[in-house]
Amino acid sequence: MTSINIVCIGKLKEKYWRDAEAEYRKRLGAFCRLRIIEKKESALPGGAPAALIEKARDEESRAILESSGGALIVLSPDGDKMTSEAFAALIKKYADKGDMTFAVGGSYGLSDNIKENAAAVVSFSDVTMPHQLFRIVLIEQVYRAFMIINGRTYHK
Amino acid sequence: MTSINIVCIGKLKEKYWRDAEAEYRKRLGAFCRLRIIEKKESALPGGAPAALIEKARDEESRAILESSGGALIVLSPDGDKMTSEAFAALIKKYADKGDMTFAVGGSYGLSDNIKENAAAVVSFSDVTMPHQLFRIVLIEQVYRAFMIINGRTYHK
Repeated sequence: MTSINIVCIGKLKEKYWRDAEAEYRKRLGAFCRLRIIEKKESALPGGAPAALIEKARDEESRAILESSGGALIVLSPDGDKMTSEAFAALIKKYADKGDMTFAVGGSYGLSDNIKENAAAVVSFSDVTMPHQLFRIVLIEQVYRAFMIINGRTYHK
Repeated sequence: MTSINIVCIGKLKEKYWRDAEAEYRKRLGAFCRLRIIEKKESALPGGAPAALIEKARDEESRAILESSGGALIVLSPDGDKMTSEAFAALIKKYADKGDMTFAVGGSYGLSDNIKENAAAVVSFSDVTMPHQLFRIVLIEQVYRAFMIINGRTYHK
């Protein structure tokens, strides 16, 4: 069974996000060994100068990279747009070879360095979402991918 | 204050989706009069023939159209991709003129007829999401749009 890591920044603060994640986590148990690794969120005040934001982004990205294992798939707004079917094909390609890590940035995004280390950089949307909601969108897409890979019916 | 309707198919079955929606609904109270109108979901068995699916899609679309008021914005995978800023500009354009309705289809999508009646057809993503999760993504984007329109800071 493939090991899949989702490495992200900070904890899910709201119970409804935690419960939604727990549901997909449970369902994914049928398909992979899933670990969700939460790295420390940099605590910057609102309106922090650009240099501090860049430093926070670099530190968070380095922490994510250190916790990554196997093929690294970075989720980033400037990544390649794809359908759920293409995302499933990407997961199948790397899952056949071994383990994988999905990296999701925090409020400040991810550094170029982590993107250069990635096997793929993927974007689901042009709109900006809170990174906590994005985590739910990602885990649902990973679950959907395994349903597609296994030829199972799954409602829209 | 602009009245905004979100017309969609079926109820949110999971408590975590209802709680997430309730949170954004509360926050949106500062910006608009929001009504969420849930139309009846067609109950088709899995593997129903295409003609039955088309009939269900037409019936659901007609029910949504009947509950729409003001400018109609249809959310559909084949709509125009846009950023959160462009979506905010779209909302501002129509909110300045009066009321608006956002239409979200169910499992079977929406008919061409409702798209032809729309002021705009918008897509947030190439990936397929459960329509219940998509409702949360939409209400968060509507909230984000009002934060952008009002020049307020809002975390990613």
